[in-house]
Amino acid sequence: MSDEDKNLIEILEENIPIDIAKYITYVQSPHCGAIATFAGTTRDTFEGKTVLELRYEAYVPMAIRCIKSICSSARSSWNLHSIAVAHRLGPVPVGEMSIFIATSAVHRADALDACKFLIDEVKASVPIWKKEVYTNGEVWKENAEFLERRDEHGKPVVDHGIAQARPEKRGCCLGKIKMNGADSK
Amino acid sequence: MSDEDKNLIEILEENIPIDIAKYITYVQSPHCGAIATFAGTTRDTFEGKTVLELRYEAYVPMAIRCIKSICSSARSSWNLHSIAVAHRLGPVPVGEMSIFIATSAVHRADALDACKFLIDEVKASVPIWKKEVYTNGEVWKENAEFLERRDEHGKPVVDHGIAQARPEKRGCCLGKIKMNGADSK
Repeated sequence: MSDEDKNLIEILEENIPIDIAKYITYVQSPHCGAIATFAGTTRDTFEGKTVLELRYEAYVPMAIRCIKSICSSARSSWNLHSIAVAHRLGPVPVGEMSIFIATSAVHRADALDACKFLIDEVKASVPIWKKEVYTNGEVWKENAEFLERRDEHGKPVVDHGIAQARPEKRGCCLGKIKMNGADSK
Repeated sequence: MSDEDKNLIEILEENIPIDIAKYITYVQSPHCGAIATFAGTTRDTFEGKTVLELRYEAYVPMAIRCIKSICSSARSSWNLHSIAVAHRLGPVPVGEMSIFIATSAVHRADALDACKFLIDEVKASVPIWKKEVYTNGEVWKENAEFLERRDEHGKPVVDHGIAQARPEKRGCCLGKIKMNGADSK
Protein backbone atom coordinates (compact mmCIF):
# COMPACT_ATOMS: atom_id res chain seq x y z
CA MET A 1 0.00 0.00 0.00
CA SER A 2 1.39 3.44 -0.86
CA ASP A 3 1.56 6.33 1.59
CA GLU A 4 -1.22 8.00 -0.40
CA ASP A 5 -3.56 5.10 0.33
CA LYS A 6 -3.03 5.38 4.06
CA ASN A 7 -4.00 9.05 4.35
CA LEU A 8 -7.65 10.00 4.72
CA ILE A 9 -8.30 13.73 4.40
CA GLU A 10 -11.83 15.09 4.60
CA ILE A 11 -13.15 18.64 4.61
CA LEU A 12 -16.72 18.29 5.84
CA GLU A 13 -19.53 20.48 4.54
CA GLU A 14 -21.70 22.53 6.90
CA ASN A 15 -23.51 20.88 9.78
CA ILE A 16 -21.78 17.51 9.47
CA PRO A 17 -20.34 16.55 12.87
CA ILE A 18 -16.98 14.77 12.91
CA ASP A 19 -17.44 11.01 13.24
CA ILE A 20 -14.32 10.26 15.26
CA ALA A 21 -15.01 6.51 15.37
CA LYS A 22 -14.72 6.45 11.57
CA TYR A 23 -11.25 8.00 11.63
CA ILE A 24 -9.98 5.92 14.53
CA THR A 25 -11.20 2.77 12.77
CA TYR A 26 -9.45 3.97 9.60
CA VAL A 27 -6.05 4.25 11.29
CA GLN A 28 -6.41 1.15 13.50
CA SER A 29 -4.37 -1.83 12.30
CA PRO A 30 -3.16 -5.18 13.67
CA HIS A 31 0.35 -4.05 12.68
CA CYS A 32 0.22 -1.02 15.00
CA GLY A 33 0.75 -0.65 18.72
CA ALA A 34 -0.31 2.98 18.99
CA ILE A 35 -3.00 5.44 17.94
CA ALA A 36 -2.75 9.12 18.82
CA THR A 37 -5.52 11.61 18.20
CA PHE A 38 -6.14 15.31 18.57
CA ALA A 39 -9.48 17.09 18.50
CA GLY A 40 -9.88 20.86 18.34
CA THR A 41 -13.15 21.98 19.94
CA THR A 42 -14.98 25.31 20.10
CA ARG A 43 -14.55 26.79 23.56
CA ASP A 44 -16.95 29.17 25.19
CA THR A 45 -14.64 32.09 25.82
CA PHE A 46 -11.78 33.84 24.05
CA GLU A 47 -9.88 36.65 25.72
CA GLY A 48 -12.74 37.21 28.14
CA LYS A 49 -15.42 37.36 25.46
CA THR A 50 -18.29 34.86 25.33
CA VAL A 51 -18.08 32.77 22.16
CA LEU A 52 -21.34 31.52 20.59
CA GLU A 53 -19.76 29.49 17.79
CA LEU A 54 -16.88 29.40 15.35
CA ARG A 55 -17.43 29.40 11.60
CA TYR A 56 -14.95 27.95 9.15
CA GLU A 57 -14.46 28.56 5.46
CA ALA A 58 -11.90 26.95 3.19
CA TYR A 59 -10.67 26.90 -0.36
CA VAL A 60 -11.21 23.16 -0.33
CA PRO A 61 -8.96 21.89 -3.18
CA MET A 62 -6.01 23.89 -1.85
CA ALA A 63 -6.74 22.91 1.75
CA ILE A 64 -6.70 19.23 0.82
CA ARG A 65 -3.54 19.67 -1.24
CA CYS A 66 -1.86 21.46 1.66
CA ILE A 67 -2.90 18.81 4.20
CA LYS A 68 -1.58 16.08 1.87
CA SER A 69 1.73 17.88 1.79
CA ILE A 70 1.79 18.07 5.59
CA CYS A 71 1.06 14.32 5.77
CA SER A 72 4.03 13.67 3.49
CA SER A 73 6.22 15.81 5.73
CA ALA A 74 5.06 13.83 8.75
CA ARG A 75 5.83 10.52 7.03
CA SER A 76 9.33 11.73 6.22
CA SER A 77 9.99 12.36 9.93
CA TRP A 78 8.12 9.52 11.64
CA ASN A 79 7.35 5.89 10.89
CA LEU A 80 3.57 6.07 10.44
CA HIS A 81 1.01 3.54 9.31
CA SER A 82 -2.08 5.69 8.71
CA ILE A 83 -3.11 9.32 9.03
CA ALA A 84 -6.65 10.73 9.13
CA VAL A 85 -7.41 14.46 9.11
CA ALA A 86 -10.97 15.82 9.15
CA HIS A 87 -12.01 19.47 9.31
CA ARG A 88 -15.55 20.84 9.52
CA LEU A 89 -16.70 23.89 7.59
CA GLY A 90 -19.53 26.23 8.53
CA PRO A 91 -20.69 26.85 12.09
CA VAL A 92 -19.21 24.73 14.90
CA PRO A 93 -21.10 25.32 18.16
CA VAL A 94 -19.38 25.53 21.55
CA GLY A 95 -18.20 22.11 22.75
CA GLU A 96 -18.18 20.50 19.30
CA MET A 97 -15.12 19.43 17.30
CA SER A 98 -13.91 21.46 14.33
CA ILE A 99 -10.86 19.32 13.55
CA PHE A 100 -9.84 15.76 14.28
CA ILE A 101 -6.49 14.13 13.55
CA ALA A 102 -5.60 10.47 14.10
CA THR A 103 -2.27 8.76 13.52
CA SER A 104 -1.23 5.14 13.93
CA ALA A 105 2.22 3.61 14.19
CA VAL A 106 4.06 0.55 15.44
CA HIS A 107 5.53 2.59 18.29
CA ARG A 108 3.83 5.26 20.35
CA ALA A 109 6.44 8.01 20.04
CA ASP A 110 5.90 8.11 16.27
CA ALA A 111 2.12 8.34 16.57
CA LEU A 112 2.22 10.98 19.33
CA ASP A 113 4.90 13.23 17.87
CA ALA A 114 3.44 13.10 14.37
CA CYS A 115 -0.03 13.95 15.70
CA LYS A 116 1.34 17.05 17.39
CA PHE A 117 3.26 18.04 14.26
CA LEU A 118 0.16 17.58 12.10
CA ILE A 119 -2.12 19.82 14.16
CA ASP A 120 0.57 22.48 14.51
CA GLU A 121 1.18 22.49 10.75
CA VAL A 122 -2.50 22.42 9.80
CA LYS A 123 -3.17 25.39 12.07
CA ALA A 124 -0.14 27.25 10.74
CA SER A 125 -0.43 26.78 7.01
CA VAL A 126 -3.70 25.37 5.66
CA PRO A 127 -6.11 27.84 3.99
CA ILE A 128 -9.01 27.39 6.39
CA TRP A 129 -10.32 30.59 7.90
CA LYS A 130 -12.05 30.95 11.23
CA LYS A 131 -14.70 33.48 12.24
CA GLU A 132 -15.30 33.89 15.96
CA VAL A 133 -18.92 34.74 16.70
CA TYR A 134 -19.36 36.48 20.06
CA THR A 135 -22.45 37.66 21.85
CA ASN A 136 -21.57 41.20 20.73
CA GLY A 137 -20.12 40.74 17.24
CA GLU A 138 -17.89 38.58 15.10
CA VAL A 139 -14.38 38.65 13.68
CA TRP A 140 -12.32 36.63 11.21
CA LYS A 141 -9.27 35.34 13.03
CA GLU A 142 -5.78 34.27 12.08
CA ASN A 143 -3.94 31.73 14.19
CA ALA A 144 -1.07 33.29 16.12
CA GLU A 145 1.32 30.64 14.83
CA PHE A 146 0.34 31.40 11.25
CA LEU A 147 1.28 35.04 11.73
CA GLU A 148 4.57 33.99 13.32
CA ARG A 149 5.39 31.96 10.22
CA ARG A 150 5.39 35.04 8.00
CA ASP A 151 8.71 36.74 7.38
CA GLU A 152 9.32 40.48 7.33
CA HIS A 153 7.71 40.73 3.87
CA GLY A 154 4.51 39.05 5.11
CA LYS A 155 5.29 35.85 3.21
CA PRO A 156 4.92 32.40 4.75
CA VAL A 157 8.17 30.90 6.00
CA VAL A 158 6.97 27.31 5.61
CA ASP A 159 4.59 26.29 2.86
CA HIS A 160 5.34 22.59 2.40
CA GLY A 161 6.83 23.20 -1.02
CA ILE A 162 3.56 24.14 -2.66
CA ALA A 163 4.40 27.80 -3.26
CA GLN A 164 7.81 26.93 -4.71
CA ALA A 165 6.25 24.40 -7.04
CA ARG A 166 3.96 27.06 -8.53
CA PRO A 167 5.77 30.04 -10.05
CA GLU A 168 2.74 32.28 -9.63
CA LYS A 169 3.03 31.65 -5.87
CA ARG A 170 -0.56 30.69 -5.28
CA GLY A 171 0.56 28.33 -2.53
CA CYS A 172 -1.75 27.33 0.32
CA CYS A 173 -0.26 29.79 2.79
CA LEU A 174 -0.34 32.70 0.39
CA GLY A 175 -3.98 31.96 -0.33
CA LYS A 176 -4.67 32.18 3.38
CA ILE A 177 -3.02 35.61 3.58
CA LYS A 178 -5.01 36.97 0.62
CA MET A 179 -8.34 35.97 2.10
CA ASN A 180 -7.45 37.60 5.38
CA GLY A 181 -6.24 40.68 3.57
CA ALA A 182 -9.81 41.19 2.35
CA ASP A 183 -11.02 40.47 5.91
CA SER A 184 -13.97 41.77 7.93
CA LYS A 185 -16.76 40.01 6.09
CA MET B 1 -14.55 21.20 40.96
CA SER B 2 -11.37 19.72 42.47
CA ASP B 3 -8.67 18.04 40.42
CA GLU B 4 -9.79 14.73 41.90
CA ASP B 5 -13.24 15.14 40.40
CA LYS B 6 -11.85 15.67 36.92
CA ASN B 7 -9.81 12.45 36.80
CA LEU B 8 -11.47 9.22 35.70
CA ILE B 9 -9.33 6.13 36.23
CA GLU B 10 -10.66 2.70 35.38
CA ILE B 11 -9.01 -0.71 35.41
CA LEU B 12 -11.35 -2.90 33.39
CA GLU B 13 -11.98 -6.53 34.23
CA GLU B 14 -11.43 -9.31 31.66
CA ASN B 15 -13.18 -9.16 28.29
CA ILE B 16 -14.47 -5.61 28.66
CA PRO B 17 -13.43 -3.59 25.60
CA ILE B 18 -12.47 0.03 26.13
CA ASP B 19 -15.37 2.35 25.34
CA ILE B 20 -13.38 5.29 24.02
CA ALA B 21 -16.49 7.41 23.39
CA LYS B 22 -17.18 7.30 27.13
CA TYR B 23 -13.75 8.69 28.01
CA ILE B 24 -13.75 11.33 25.28
CA THR B 25 -17.19 12.49 26.42
CA TYR B 26 -15.88 12.59 29.99
CA VAL B 27 -13.02 14.97 29.14
CA GLN B 28 -14.97 17.08 26.62
CA SER B 29 -16.01 20.50 27.96
CA PRO B 30 -17.28 23.83 26.60
CA HIS B 31 -14.36 25.44 28.43
CA CYS B 32 -11.76 23.45 26.44
CA GLY B 33 -10.33 23.93 22.98
CA ALA B 34 -8.39 20.68 22.83
CA ILE B 35 -8.66 16.95 23.47
CA ALA B 36 -5.67 14.64 23.02
CA THR B 37 -5.88 10.88 23.24
CA PHE B 38 -3.58 7.90 23.11
CA ALA B 39 -4.55 4.27 22.60
CA GLY B 40 -2.17 1.36 23.03
CA THR B 41 -3.18 -1.60 20.86
CA THR B 42 -2.02 -5.21 20.62
CA ARG B 43 0.10 -5.59 17.50
CA ASP B 44 0.55 -8.80 15.62
CA THR B 45 4.34 -9.13 15.81
CA PHE B 46 7.06 -8.49 18.34
CA GLU B 47 10.72 -8.92 17.43
CA GLY B 48 9.75 -11.12 14.48
CA LYS B 49 7.46 -13.40 16.50
CA THR B 50 3.75 -13.71 15.74
CA VAL B 51 1.69 -12.41 18.66
CA LEU B 52 -1.72 -13.98 19.32
CA GLU B 53 -2.74 -11.73 22.19
CA LEU B 54 -1.44 -9.85 25.19
CA ARG B 55 -2.66 -10.59 28.71
CA TYR B 56 -2.58 -8.05 31.51
CA GLU B 57 -2.65 -8.49 35.25
CA ALA B 58 -2.59 -5.77 37.88
CA TYR B 59 -2.60 -5.20 41.59
CA VAL B 60 -5.63 -2.95 41.08
CA PRO B 61 -5.67 -0.74 44.22
CA MET B 62 -1.99 0.07 43.79
CA ALA B 63 -2.36 0.60 40.04
CA ILE B 64 -5.16 3.11 40.60
CA ARG B 65 -3.22 4.84 43.32
CA CYS B 66 -0.17 5.06 41.08
CA ILE B 67 -2.17 6.43 38.12
CA LYS B 68 -3.77 9.04 40.41
CA SER B 69 -0.29 10.12 41.42
CA ILE B 70 0.74 10.40 37.75
CA CYS B 71 -2.37 12.50 37.05
CA SER B 72 -1.36 14.86 39.87
CA SER B 73 2.13 15.13 38.39
CA ALA B 74 0.63 15.97 35.00
CA ARG B 75 -1.59 18.65 36.51
CA SER B 76 1.41 20.22 38.20
CA SER B 77 3.13 20.60 34.82
CA TRP B 78 0.25 21.42 32.47
CA ASN B 79 -3.02 23.32 32.68
CA LEU B 80 -5.52 20.48 32.28
CA HIS B 81 -9.27 20.31 32.58
CA SER B 82 -9.93 16.55 32.67
CA ILE B 83 -7.97 13.32 32.46
CA ALA B 84 -9.29 9.83 31.72
CA VAL B 85 -7.16 6.69 31.93
CA ALA B 86 -8.56 3.23 31.21
CA HIS B 87 -6.61 -0.06 31.18
CA ARG B 88 -7.94 -3.50 30.33
CA LEU B 89 -6.99 -6.62 32.24
CA GLY B 90 -7.00 -10.16 30.91
CA PRO B 91 -6.52 -11.09 27.25
CA VAL B 92 -6.41 -8.30 24.67
CA PRO B 93 -6.51 -9.75 21.13
CA VAL B 94 -4.48 -8.36 18.25
CA GLY B 95 -5.84 -5.00 17.02
CA GLU B 96 -7.74 -4.20 20.22
CA MET B 97 -6.92 -1.47 22.73
CA SER B 98 -5.34 -2.29 26.08
CA ILE B 99 -5.01 1.28 27.31
CA PHE B 100 -6.70 4.56 26.49
CA ILE B 101 -5.79 8.00 27.78
CA ALA B 102 -7.67 11.23 27.11
CA THR B 103 -6.80 14.74 28.25
CA SER B 104 -8.59 18.03 27.73
CA ALA B 105 -7.33 21.57 28.11
CA VAL B 106 -7.99 25.13 27.03
CA HIS B 107 -4.92 25.04 24.80
CA ARG B 108 -3.70 22.15 22.66
CA ALA B 109 -0.07 22.07 23.80
CA ASP B 110 -1.19 21.26 27.35
CA ALA B 111 -3.49 18.44 26.23
CA LEU B 112 -0.92 16.93 23.83
CA ASP B 113 2.14 17.14 26.06
CA ALA B 114 0.29 15.85 29.12
CA CYS B 115 -1.13 12.94 27.13
CA LYS B 116 2.38 11.89 26.10
CA PHE B 117 3.65 12.28 29.66
CA LEU B 118 0.78 10.18 31.02
CA ILE B 119 1.31 7.20 28.72
CA ASP B 120 5.08 7.30 29.25
CA GLU B 121 4.65 7.37 33.03
CA VAL B 122 1.93 4.72 33.13
CA LYS B 123 4.10 2.38 31.07
CA ALA B 124 7.13 3.11 33.22
CA SER B 125 5.78 2.90 36.72
CA VAL B 126 2.30 1.41 37.17
CA PRO B 127 2.07 -2.17 38.48
CA ILE B 128 0.36 -3.68 35.46
CA TRP B 129 2.09 -6.73 34.00
CA LYS B 130 1.96 -7.89 30.42
CA LYS B 131 2.20 -11.43 29.10
CA GLU B 132 2.93 -11.78 25.39
CA VAL B 133 1.30 -14.88 23.96
CA TYR B 134 3.00 -16.08 20.78
CA THR B 135 2.18 -18.93 18.44
CA ASN B 136 5.03 -20.88 20.09
CA GLY B 137 4.88 -19.86 23.73
CA GLU B 138 4.35 -16.98 26.10
CA VAL B 139 6.42 -14.66 28.28
CA TRP B 140 5.81 -12.03 30.96
CA LYS B 141 7.32 -8.80 29.75
CA GLU B 142 8.66 -5.68 31.35
CA ASN B 143 8.58 -2.40 29.48
CA ALA B 144 12.04 -1.27 28.44
CA GLU B 145 11.45 2.15 29.99
CA PHE B 146 10.51 0.57 33.30
CA LEU B 147 13.80 -1.28 33.41
CA GLU B 148 15.62 1.95 32.55
CA ARG B 149 14.02 3.62 35.55
CA ARG B 150 15.63 1.23 38.01
CA ASP B 151 18.91 2.28 39.58
CA GLU B 152 21.90 0.03 40.19
CA HIS B 153 20.14 -1.57 43.18
CA GLY B 154 17.14 -2.47 41.07
CA LYS B 155 14.97 0.16 42.72
CA PRO B 156 12.70 2.48 40.78
CA VAL B 157 14.15 5.93 40.14
CA VAL B 158 10.73 7.57 39.88
CA ASP B 159 7.76 6.37 41.87
CA HIS B 160 5.57 9.49 42.09
CA GLY B 161 6.19 9.84 45.80
CA ILE B 162 4.27 6.74 46.78
CA ALA B 163 7.27 4.74 48.01
CA GLN B 164 8.56 7.69 50.03
CA ALA B 165 5.17 8.17 51.66
CA ARG B 166 5.15 4.57 52.89
CA PRO B 167 8.10 3.63 55.14
CA GLU B 168 7.75 -0.05 54.28
CA LYS B 169 8.42 0.92 50.63
CA ARG B 170 5.48 -0.90 49.13
CA GLY B 171 5.27 1.73 46.39
CA CYS B 172 3.70 0.98 43.03
CA CYS B 173 6.98 0.48 41.22
CA LEU B 174 8.42 -1.78 43.88
CA GLY B 175 5.29 -3.89 43.67
CA LYS B 176 5.88 -4.23 39.98
CA ILE B 177 9.43 -5.44 40.53
CA LYS B 178 8.35 -8.02 43.10
CA MET B 179 5.79 -9.52 40.81
CA ASN B 180 8.33 -9.81 38.04
CA GLY B 181 10.85 -11.26 40.47
CA ALA B 182 8.50 -14.22 40.89
CA ASP B 183 8.04 -14.24 37.09
CA SER B 184 7.52 -17.05 34.59
CA LYS B 185 3.98 -17.98 35.52
